[in-house]
Amino acid sequence: MKKQFEEKTISRKPVFKGHVIEVEVQEVELPNGNHSQRELVHHNGAVAIVAFTPDNELVLVRQYRKALEKAIAEIPAGKLEPGEDPLESAKRELAEETGITAKKWSKLISFYTSPGFANELVHIFLAEELVQGEAYPDDDEFVTRLDVSLDEAQSMIINEDIHDAKTAYAVQYMAIKQGEE
Amino acid sequence: MKKQFEEKTISRKPVFKGHVIEVEVQEVELPNGNHSQRELVHHNGAVAIVAFTPDNELVLVRQYRKALEKAIAEIPAGKLEPGEDPLESAKRELAEETGITAKKWSKLISFYTSPGFANELVHIFLAEELVQGEAYPDDDEFVTRLDVSLDEAQSMIINEDIHDAKTAYAVQYMAIKQGEE
Repeated sequence: MKKQFEEKTISRKPVFKGHVIEVEVQEVELPNGNHSQRELVHHNGAVAIVAFTPDNELVLVRQYRKALEKAIAEIPAGKLEPGEDPLESAKRELAEETGITAKKWSKLISFYTSPGFANELVHIFLAEELVQGEAYPDDDEFVTRLDVSLDEAQSMIINEDIHDAKTAYAVQYMAIKQGEE
Repeated sequence: MKKQFEEKTISRKPVFKGHVIEVEVQEVELPNGNHSQRELVHHNGAVAIVAFTPDNELVLVRQYRKALEKAIAEIPAGKLEPGEDPLESAKRELAEETGITAKKWSKLISFYTSPGFANELVHIFLAEELVQGEAYPDDDEFVTRLDVSLDEAQSMIINEDIHDAKTAYAVQYMAIKQGEE
């Protein structure tokens, strides 16, 4: 099933090679024999962390996103380095951005963010049994932490202060988990 | 709050202009006065539709995604044309891909898929009171429909047959909704 309707690559033209993304245009052959073009963004993938405080609040960080020209509140996250283990990356990102370490880690899900044009895969982990320490963001990283209840998180979705896919997913996870208790 | 830690644009260099995405590199000034570079992908945005059959199954379409080099099952979705109304686009995409029209529409959420590098915003709608008609995909669009129960959808997440952000969100929505009944 995974190769159903496969599009065969006829030719590929690299158009941009940056530090975060690479872009290429491929000419492909469709299942009916026609040709089409695909604009494709390559990305190393990312990790994101769902962590709840002892008061059952979701840990968020607010940061400016140049692509959106606004600051939004997101669950802690970061890009994977080439070859980096996603769990190790998640531990590092959580500690850097929030100072939190966790004794128990589990994988919640991984998903592609934009399968129509990009191969960015986000791995989402649940961090439990948290220990609070000092944050140590990179010199050029500007984030502020905020912890929010489920009600607050749902208001922030309406206000578009939470406005990205992984954090929307995390808020639903919080709703399901608190509904079970 | 939305301008907190704003990054001011110092210069911008367009590097690719395609039919789906445009890419530019911006030099920005950080809050501490340092300069950095941002690789940014511009995208018109997209719509996606959560629809349940009379048997409470989630409507999915399977299609090949060249960026992933595999076929995955996703909720029906499509790109917005410039200036297009998201609700009208959602109605059109659902009808084209599945033949379904719906008497009742509501907005569930919108979210940015990859705020670290892209401005793609996905608008997710709930379609209710469905009427089944004939699908009419574009000549160069190859999709097969499948309707799945919540249990099946959760297995497909484990199998990575459902493997994208908007569909993961839709499956959680299904779990919350069926939990309420």
